[in-house]
Amino acid sequence: MNNLLNDFPILQEIVNDEKLVYLDNAATTQKPRQVLDAIRNYYEHDNANVHRGVHTLAQRATEQFEGVRQKVADFIGANNPQEVVYTKGTTEALNWIAASYGRTHLHAGDEIVVSYMEHHSNLVPWQQLALQTGAKLKYIGLTVDGQLDLKNAQQVITDKTAIVSLCHASNVLGVINPIKQVTRLAHQHGAIMVVDGAQAVPHMPVDVKELDVDFYAFSGHKMLGPTGCGILWGKKELLNEMPPLEFGGEMISNVGLYQTDFKAPPYKFEGGTQNIAGVIGLGAAIDYLNEIGLDKIMKHERRLVEYVLPQLTAIQGIEIYGPKDPRQRTGVLSFNLTGVHPHDLASALDMDGVAVRAGHHCAQPLMKYLGVSATARASFYLYNTQTDADLLIRAVLDAKEFFLNGSF
Amino acid sequence: MNNLLNDFPILQEIVNDEKLVYLDNAATTQKPRQVLDAIRNYYEHDNANVHRGVHTLAQRATEQFEGVRQKVADFIGANNPQEVVYTKGTTEALNWIAASYGRTHLHAGDEIVVSYMEHHSNLVPWQQLALQTGAKLKYIGLTVDGQLDLKNAQQVITDKTAIVSLCHASNVLGVINPIKQVTRLAHQHGAIMVVDGAQAVPHMPVDVKELDVDFYAFSGHKMLGPTGCGILWGKKELLNEMPPLEFGGEMISNVGLYQTDFKAPPYKFEGGTQNIAGVIGLGAAIDYLNEIGLDKIMKHERRLVEYVLPQLTAIQGIEIYGPKDPRQRTGVLSFNLTGVHPHDLASALDMDGVAVRAGHHCAQPLMKYLGVSATARASFYLYNTQTDADLLIRAVLDAKEFFLNGSF
Repeated sequence: MNNLLNDFPILQEIVNDEKLVYLDNAATTQKPRQVLDAIRNYYEHDNANVHRGVHTLAQRATEQFEGVRQKVADFIGANNPQEVVYTKGTTEALNWIAASYGRTHLHAGDEIVVSYMEHHSNLVPWQQLALQTGAKLKYIGLTVDGQLDLKNAQQVITDKTAIVSLCHASNVLGVINPIKQVTRLAHQHGAIMVVDGAQAVPHMPVDVKELDVDFYAFSGHKMLGPTGCGILWGKKELLNEMPPLEFGGEMISNVGLYQTDFKAPPYKFEGGTQNIAGVIGLGAAIDYLNEIGLDKIMKHERRLVEYVLPQLTAIQGIEIYGPKDPRQRTGVLSFNLTGVHPHDLASALDMDGVAVRAGHHCAQPLMKYLGVSATARASFYLYNTQTDADLLIRAVLDAKEFFLNGSF
Repeated sequence: MNNLLNDFPILQEIVNDEKLVYLDNAATTQKPRQVLDAIRNYYEHDNANVHRGVHTLAQRATEQFEGVRQKVADFIGANNPQEVVYTKGTTEALNWIAASYGRTHLHAGDEIVVSYMEHHSNLVPWQQLALQTGAKLKYIGLTVDGQLDLKNAQQVITDKTAIVSLCHASNVLGVINPIKQVTRLAHQHGAIMVVDGAQAVPHMPVDVKELDVDFYAFSGHKMLGPTGCGILWGKKELLNEMPPLEFGGEMISNVGLYQTDFKAPPYKFEGGTQNIAGVIGLGAAIDYLNEIGLDKIMKHERRLVEYVLPQLTAIQGIEIYGPKDPRQRTGVLSFNLTGVHPHDLASALDMDGVAVRAGHHCAQPLMKYLGVSATARASFYLYNTQTDADLLIRAVLDAKEFFLNGSF
């Protein structure tokens, strides 16, 4: 994996006189040259608006833009590229499911089930849907080590449940959820299963058919792709019956003065000019990930966690959230140092060039559940190395020394 | 203006053995090196997720991302960067006004006024709003030469009118609408004024304060910027009272289990990771346009239209839509050649390297109004030259000869 470091120019960046150690991958990932070249190449040779254009550039652009749909479908094991809807990102995809599927299917008394570990993007849309429809929002609890409590899930999911929506992997705890089991449970009760895959698709092989979920959402920028581009995947029969939410060019079949007929999915959801260059960049990111292999990426991250987790745990005053077993988690490590605010800790790490995030990580209910206001979070990806892990540990030790003993 | 050709690498592209003559600027524009460099530079040196991050890259990214808000505000004469909301593009911006402002303010019996020349993105959202609320959609007619019929506007806009929404410039007719006058009329009747500026902002100086409009929407990709990024500008008091539509990270101030408090605008509308690189690219596009000057760009396009319009008009069998006076229009020229389908005409032009669009241009009601099913459309921008205009005329003459006499 070390050869690929050269593909990421930003990893040579000097931050506060130290070489950048980028461990904020759960927020966004860096982009390889191959992705940046694909974007630039598109703009320098093929840029045109897609669909309906008969001139050469428009045809080239359309071919590339639509080609990525098949690439995405293959990447997540979907049946059909027509099930792949381009969005701004995971947040928009989840909002569309709630606002379109949710508002047309839910009634007062129906129940929506989430967990305490959801990112706001997989929580607030369901809250608002509940407020709008009179449906009830219910939470699946967590086990003491931060896993989804499956026994509790069996109690919370009932015949009243219309929608279950869970993250595939937590952006705070790093824990990987048993989506297949929960999906079976949801389907047994006649509910549909929605998955926020933002923290999973970049880090492990995902097969929506094998998981048997109904909707799956993820973001390009968290998997080496450009910002402003994500995917809503849905089973075709569900997408078919969903009303579109953004009306405009390219999503219509016929516009009268007072009535409009819409195209079939995915196009009916894609009103207006899409992020064409973003989609093409996402295609290049998928090519890059495929060339390495998601299995290999998953193993690489796991080895890093296996290496760093015991060292981090051994530091007195460090509390780590989520499962202790690296096999149950992605490369996300949230932690706190007793007596030091996570923002101060992150600032101190930044002085050593180590970029981690600090805050509630868009998961305030989880913070309350954990009894903290915030955490620091280091998150690894395919280009991180054992040296990065060593530098993280050294920086945490430095920071501890500084904050608790007032010296380096 | 000729010096700037070197800034656009794609203009050297060879299409069907001919040098590209790109005249599809109303669909999307080409990008100068300066914009592509800004995007690449961001990804290679500063890429991080914005807001709340305490590490150096996150701070750099946030500073650039928020800096563009001020740049956009200055560019359109807005009071306050907080009135500038990032969107995917014009279509999303107009949909948000309809779905958020519209649904909370309109009642059965209220009236929404548009014109026959609207792009679907400024028509279908209002149709759907009318269907949802019981409001009535009304159309302002056009004069015989394709201008907005101001006398008719005075009849159509009444005290029942709640919203007037017009394009600033038509994507088919090229006509520039008298937004200031219509806005005064709308306000006299207590209606708000929404403007689709997608075809105006790239081509002429626009000052939202001087126009006194309430909302103004436009797209980055039509003004040298990247795809997937646009602007919703709105008066602060209106944005303040509008409910957000996309819920998730970064748009909340506090998330409880069952209730959420939102941030103030613009942030409450910007749920989830935005198109950060797109916004930064848009900032570079604005710098580029400012350096040349919108006045100069407008004059350049007008000179091209003054040059090409009489020549095109002189070709027997060519019908041109929209005003004959170049001072009343942008660089958009829609036309048909008797006996030749516009798609065939566009394909023939493409054989000469001349890229124009053919179709209904997302304006089916206007096509019906004009009594045609489609038109060909050539649209000029700052990098087009008199040579491009000559090549367009030559290609049209070639095509006419081929289709009508069967030979070149």
